[in-house]
Amino acid sequence: MTAEQFADRHIGPGPDEERRMLDTVGYASIDELMDAAIPEVIRWHGRLNLPEPAGERETLAELRALAARNTVAVSMIGLGYHGTHTPAVIRRNVLENPAWYTAYTPYQPEISQGRLEALLNFQTMVSDLTGLPTANASMLDEGTAAAEAMTLARRASKSTSRVYVVDADTLPQTIAVIRGRAEPLGIEVRMLDVDRDELPAQFFGLHLQYPGASGAVRDHSRLVQAAHTAGALVTVAADLLALTLLRPPGEVGADIAAGTTQRFGVPMGFGGPHAGYLAVRSGLERMLPGRLVGVSRDAAGDPAYRLALQTREQHIRREKATSNICTAQVLLAVMAGMYAVYHGPQGLRAIAARTHGMAARLAAGLRAGGVTVADVAFFDTVTATVPTRAADVVAAAARRGVNLRLVDADRVGIACDETTTAAHLAAVWAAFDVPCFDGEAAAGLPAALARTSDFLTHPVFSAHRSETAMLRYLRRLADADYALDRGMIPLGSCTMKLNATTEMEPISWAQFAHIHPLAPAEQTAGYRELIAQLEGWLAEVTGYDAVSVQPNAGSQGELAGLLAIRAYHRERGEGHRDVCLIPSSAHGTNAASAVMAGMRVVVVGCDDDGNVDLVGLDTKIDQHRDALAAIMVTYPSTHGVYETGIASLCAKVHDAGGQVYVDGANLNALVGFAKPGRFGADVSHLNLHKTFCIPHGGGGPGVGPVAVRAHLAPFLPGDPAGAPVAGRPAISAARYGSAGILPIPWAYLRMMGADGLTRATGVAVLAANYVAARLRPHFPVLYAGNKGLVAHECVLDLRPLTKATGVSVDDVAKRLIDYGFHAPTMSFPVAGTLMVEPTESEDLAELDRFCDAMIAIRAEIDKVGSGQWPAGDNPLANAPHTAAMLAGDQWPHPYPRSVGGYPPGVRRAGKYWPPVRRVDGGYGDRNLVCSCPAPQAYES
Amino acid sequence: MTAEQFADRHIGPGPDEERRMLDTVGYASIDELMDAAIPEVIRWHGRLNLPEPAGERETLAELRALAARNTVAVSMIGLGYHGTHTPAVIRRNVLENPAWYTAYTPYQPEISQGRLEALLNFQTMVSDLTGLPTANASMLDEGTAAAEAMTLARRASKSTSRVYVVDADTLPQTIAVIRGRAEPLGIEVRMLDVDRDELPAQFFGLHLQYPGASGAVRDHSRLVQAAHTAGALVTVAADLLALTLLRPPGEVGADIAAGTTQRFGVPMGFGGPHAGYLAVRSGLERMLPGRLVGVSRDAAGDPAYRLALQTREQHIRREKATSNICTAQVLLAVMAGMYAVYHGPQGLRAIAARTHGMAARLAAGLRAGGVTVADVAFFDTVTATVPTRAADVVAAAARRGVNLRLVDADRVGIACDETTTAAHLAAVWAAFDVPCFDGEAAAGLPAALARTSDFLTHPVFSAHRSETAMLRYLRRLADADYALDRGMIPLGSCTMKLNATTEMEPISWAQFAHIHPLAPAEQTAGYRELIAQLEGWLAEVTGYDAVSVQPNAGSQGELAGLLAIRAYHRERGEGHRDVCLIPSSAHGTNAASAVMAGMRVVVVGCDDDGNVDLVGLDTKIDQHRDALAAIMVTYPSTHGVYETGIASLCAKVHDAGGQVYVDGANLNALVGFAKPGRFGADVSHLNLHKTFCIPHGGGGPGVGPVAVRAHLAPFLPGDPAGAPVAGRPAISAARYGSAGILPIPWAYLRMMGADGLTRATGVAVLAANYVAARLRPHFPVLYAGNKGLVAHECVLDLRPLTKATGVSVDDVAKRLIDYGFHAPTMSFPVAGTLMVEPTESEDLAELDRFCDAMIAIRAEIDKVGSGQWPAGDNPLANAPHTAAMLAGDQWPHPYPRSVGGYPPGVRRAGKYWPPVRRVDGGYGDRNLVCSCPAPQAYES
Repeated sequence: MTAEQFADRHIGPGPDEERRMLDTVGYASIDELMDAAIPEVIRWHGRLNLPEPAGERETLAELRALAARNTVAVSMIGLGYHGTHTPAVIRRNVLENPAWYTAYTPYQPEISQGRLEALLNFQTMVSDLTGLPTANASMLDEGTAAAEAMTLARRASKSTSRVYVVDADTLPQTIAVIRGRAEPLGIEVRMLDVDRDELPAQFFGLHLQYPGASGAVRDHSRLVQAAHTAGALVTVAADLLALTLLRPPGEVGADIAAGTTQRFGVPMGFGGPHAGYLAVRSGLERMLPGRLVGVSRDAAGDPAYRLALQTREQHIRREKATSNICTAQVLLAVMAGMYAVYHGPQGLRAIAARTHGMAARLAAGLRAGGVTVADVAFFDTVTATVPTRAADVVAAAARRGVNLRLVDADRVGIACDETTTAAHLAAVWAAFDVPCFDGEAAAGLPAALARTSDFLTHPVFSAHRSETAMLRYLRRLADADYALDRGMIPLGSCTMKLNATTEMEPISWAQFAHIHPLAPAEQTAGYRELIAQLEGWLAEVTGYDAVSVQPNAGSQGELAGLLAIRAYHRERGEGHRDVCLIPSSAHGTNAASAVMAGMRVVVVGCDDDGNVDLVGLDTKIDQHRDALAAIMVTYPSTHGVYETGIASLCAKVHDAGGQVYVDGANLNALVGFAKPGRFGADVSHLNLHKTFCIPHGGGGPGVGPVAVRAHLAPFLPGDPAGAPVAGRPAISAARYGSAGILPIPWAYLRMMGADGLTRATGVAVLAANYVAARLRPHFPVLYAGNKGLVAHECVLDLRPLTKATGVSVDDVAKRLIDYGFHAPTMSFPVAGTLMVEPTESEDLAELDRFCDAMIAIRAEIDKVGSGQWPAGDNPLANAPHTAAMLAGDQWPHPYPRSVGGYPPGVRRAGKYWPPVRRVDGGYGDRNLVCSCPAPQAYES
Repeated sequence: MTAEQFADRHIGPGPDEERRMLDTVGYASIDELMDAAIPEVIRWHGRLNLPEPAGERETLAELRALAARNTVAVSMIGLGYHGTHTPAVIRRNVLENPAWYTAYTPYQPEISQGRLEALLNFQTMVSDLTGLPTANASMLDEGTAAAEAMTLARRASKSTSRVYVVDADTLPQTIAVIRGRAEPLGIEVRMLDVDRDELPAQFFGLHLQYPGASGAVRDHSRLVQAAHTAGALVTVAADLLALTLLRPPGEVGADIAAGTTQRFGVPMGFGGPHAGYLAVRSGLERMLPGRLVGVSRDAAGDPAYRLALQTREQHIRREKATSNICTAQVLLAVMAGMYAVYHGPQGLRAIAARTHGMAARLAAGLRAGGVTVADVAFFDTVTATVPTRAADVVAAAARRGVNLRLVDADRVGIACDETTTAAHLAAVWAAFDVPCFDGEAAAGLPAALARTSDFLTHPVFSAHRSETAMLRYLRRLADADYALDRGMIPLGSCTMKLNATTEMEPISWAQFAHIHPLAPAEQTAGYRELIAQLEGWLAEVTGYDAVSVQPNAGSQGELAGLLAIRAYHRERGEGHRDVCLIPSSAHGTNAASAVMAGMRVVVVGCDDDGNVDLVGLDTKIDQHRDALAAIMVTYPSTHGVYETGIASLCAKVHDAGGQVYVDGANLNALVGFAKPGRFGADVSHLNLHKTFCIPHGGGGPGVGPVAVRAHLAPFLPGDPAGAPVAGRPAISAARYGSAGILPIPWAYLRMMGADGLTRATGVAVLAANYVAARLRPHFPVLYAGNKGLVAHECVLDLRPLTKATGVSVDDVAKRLIDYGFHAPTMSFPVAGTLMVEPTESEDLAELDRFCDAMIAIRAEIDKVGSGQWPAGDNPLANAPHTAAMLAGDQWPHPYPRSVGGYPPGVRRAGKYWPPVRRVDGGYGDRNLVCSCPAPQAYES
């Protein structure tokens, strides 16, 4: 009487299909296949020590029980995290809609126009509200956005100073993250009481908070001017809701604005994920880190969105990169942008005014009751002084279900937000032991700083004000995109597997969604137990001794891991070790992270088989033996191969006194079969959004825990809200990073159990080898390991075909759209190739549909090669074909329309049509437009 | 500091748009417009006495509080309602997905192929499991399905007997509904103890339950044979899950099978909604009531689904109709069908076997403990005898969180289901005071009745077994359809307004979803309070004195209202009154309901303006004065007009001793401005799925409460589970009907409040008049009331154009698809017309898009009329155009492709494409196929 196994729903192929796939690959069982594929030297033969798998209902019940141990209180702590109402239409149709959350990063713009438009709305919203012309498509959180602003200022400033001045009224966690980033880069952070202190003579940048953490709203123009005079750049970390009423950073001369959009409808989630933001003045746009959506045009000359300036990305710049940010918080940015679309400028102003009104009443009531309230202008937050009684007041409020901020023994901070009600004010007054107040409250906003400029004037911010209109807008955008709910996304290195509904549902629950990251511990017992269990399970899976979930992206996990290595060496008096070896095949992010961790990158070559060149490695080790800090490798390699030399590689580096960092991007190929912490690595980051089912969300959120062996455990990320600890810098703004989505991997691990996880790995490897076996006669498969087997992905080499026919990787990728697929990873790790990762979740029918399409495309390439179709005008060159093109009155092409739109295997009804033709990337970069274009642009 | 008003989100036009619309219509304000439109004689000038409106969050909080007063217990009561696990992927992507729940009944098959396929799956599932060749697309519940089976047997039987024999082991609520339906039709219900009694000599039908309510599984073949010998038809009410293991009704010779599919993943919802089913043997398919999906072909000869045999519908047969069922439970049928798709035959068999195994262990444990368990074969339910102790045992189980069935003082019924666990069994044993049992349990299934035939062999039931595959299948089907999330559905009489997310979310909550309709009262306090409040608010809105929410469709509300009138007359000794006057413009359902209520229908004509002919009415009243039972009118009329004669009409009928029934289909045009209960009506039914925001769900669920003045209150529907009360027959199987979706109208009323509801009515009327004003120059608007104003809908007369050009209403409706719209109501109430109801939820942009499309279509019609386009080959005749057609290699038509696919106003990117061309209805009816066609059928 065993219940249904979730693993049978997660894993695509059933027993019969598995058998047929094994037959094709030539093995009798998955065990045999894995024995052949994985080098014995790393093989782990145990059974993962995890709880026996629970069914979907039991898992939900257990999560309900954990959730019940969290307490949803009224949060008036503030500090960058505020209560907010997610409009239900956005919750259901974005956050809970697989069309949005299972989408990939919009690298294929033709099939990503919906989320690109949503991100352009976000950029326009940030740009308008901050008064700066260019905003990017979101940052990981306010703390890291501020840290990126610092390094941007460093690059852009003409000052040779290494001093960065930070407003003492900055959010504490932002200060912690800035300090953590500054130290390895040799930047000196100097705190400034902006009301009292003078600016230093030399500094390259100034960070101001607006309003301050205390709630104070200050006119920063004098400081901005002084900074500019000193050749420094100014970042203003600003609250977007306040900016609907206050003069924006751009209008006081700020060069950069940074912050969070959490209070625009994104639940607090015990710290994340939320979309941070970064906006810059004219002239800095090409230095902006992160992702930037821009407007370009397609092959028909129609406007089309795309990621702009992609050459800045780490995979191109590698060790010259100045930031390792390679994800955004797309899903959350979409939500925040849609919140602005739904409310419009009037609505946002009304919310801000109501919020301010609550704060003003609160302050008036406290004062009327004899409590001292800081005599400064404020927006939503006031600081009350109750000598020696602050802790008592905070406790009294907590008893009434309201969380306040304990600033120090004498002061209490109270933040209002759009959820604040009269009852909440009454509870606060009662906690302060003052009577309820119902008199007139003077506004706390400074008249001189009142906003006079318009914002959100683009029609998109006023056209969708009814729920019906909003619903349709969301649907229309979702329909433009191709996500996992339509078909396979065989992205090598990105592991687009099932994001099961049962994993997703709990993140919407109030007891997970509405928890402030600084809520009292007794209110977060459920979260902390969930996190402790998850960290424990991840340690078991990886063979490490300790895990921190704080890094909220893979890149941040890399940085955390490298900083742990750095701290370890320093602790042992070997702080001079600063060389990080990185194979030439590595993700570009690796190198960028090493630079950010204050290391020098030394590249190690690969041999013809794509493996790390062990002889070359010896040479590099010899060259840098005394300075060797670490090697950073991906395993299985980015070539999709189980390299046999990995154990030897680890030993060599260890022998030279270095540490081994194994990038966990490809952990999907190891779980249950090998443990990096057991085969020689000292530290890894994991990608919970790859291996452990957090959905990609259209390009974020990600979660990149760092896992270490015991000797590095003392150097895991520190608490950004706690007292600084040497060697344990904060990596993210919140202690547990994107805690709000950790129920997803928890549920996945809970439901799969040891056997399910192991089987998933086996099927993922089987699927990749099946695809390789079927496609090898048509496309060379680059790289293989033992017995010609690949790991969980395979690289298809198109270079010979390109050379012979002119048909490029791009052409094939776009042609796959016509066949109903998202392209595999293009030109990584090798230019001119496609890297295919089918994952365990695709069933045989879908794998075959993909293989059939690739084989059919090969035949099309041959027609170009044979001259049957001209090189510049064929179904590949013209791909993707839109319905508008195929149904146009003219058809000047030398192949029939049906060949363009309905290639073999494509169903006539229900075909997915891309909304635009091939997008011209260069045009968009030359004519950079990064906010919503006027509607006239769409007139044909 | 007022919070945002929900009404501003529900109502499409904002203040500026409202002003522009008023300008077009020629009024200064909505008040002036309504003063002009609504006859003063019915006008009510008060303000609705409803609670002040709550915001969306407060409403959810209040519903949470109500939900918290329900207790989710383990339900082992059975009786047709079982615990079931809704697969999360189906919950999220069907029940919680507006693409499914906001869809309309698939009367326009070209844009409904997704739900038609889903319903075909449902029909195939029912057909396969029951072993009968034809099943319909669902019934309202098991009780009404059984009652419809009775009347079907009556029609089909050659016997002249009026006796219907019913197995005494039938579900009690089914017996109640059968009795309620039988009495007005003069059918005598005779109960039969199938183990002891003999069949009577004469009877026309026999109803058997399989397994019985007691749990007993009997071999019915002998009885079936005997019934057939007597010329009677046999209905077997069967549990579909049991039929995976037991010989199906079709194989024991049953003519009809009826039942519910609730336990196929549809939550109990305190009684509904669930999809009932009805299946028949060969030869009876054309007598099947309700909706039937069939396979036909489109203009290109490709297979296409459609509703089959629509001529049987009430709107055609009117008083000759033999059933008033005109909705199905589409959304729930889709869920149940998808449950079968997801589990497949093996999965269902495993669930059944596990369920049976639990029951077997339970029985063995009870017996081992010395409790007498009925010595019969069983599937999931056992009856235990504990002399005089039954109530104590039930109470003891309830204390352990388990609900059992109290059969009588000595007997307890215990039903297992797929949610039953060992812990539940332990609780039951403890309640019986017997030790836990862990020995071997003998199977309780009779070997002789073991199922040997295959079922669900169609590939659809095995192709979607991974969650990924299931998700994509659901998305693909949803993408085929046009629902409110794509654009306007301007369906006259059907009121396709916003179904707000905040209204929808609570129905997923466990405390509403997982409540058995017979749960103890102390577990359902929240539900009962919600229902009492809702009934009270509906009474306030309509001006009636009492409301019952039991009828689970509008048609059932009609029947309930007419039966109340009938009972009232009988109570007063005027049982001879049996004439029901019905205007010729009425919904056909009205007449069918009257016949079912045992009345004779007399039709009253209409004058040239579409109003009830008051002179003709006098004549009819004179003719039938002594026999006059009632008049049944719709107000505003089905012509979309506020008839001024309504008060006079009411008075005339009352003067003759008749009662006035006002069909509430058009209440959307009255709320806040007039109350039927105040202007002369005695009874109405409401359509909560029209006026009060329950979504149409693709053709159900509906909820049709009946509202009455005080003198009829004693005759409201009775409790189907209680002792029968004369004059109060049960209308639905559950006391509160489709209780599970009542949070939707509750939330709507709670959020709109008096002013919001009144404004909604005003804007709905304004919108209809705006459309009429814009379109009148292009299409004659039939019928108008005061000052040439329409009410909430307008009838566009195409007959002159059709006569002049040959372009039909059908052509215009299908052409609207090319423009991105769902057609208005076609040929009702007048053949050759389109009836447009924009509702208050459409904003001006969408209203204008629709008007522009209609005006452009008028220009196209003129091109046909002028001979510029040939009559048989033009964009209207060929509509809708599919992408496959437009992108085809051949284009033999005399107009450019772009005119076909991209008419004016249609955006090039993101256009909705219908999956099939125009569907050939007649072909499908001549070649009736009502289960999934073999995949080969789709090969082109």
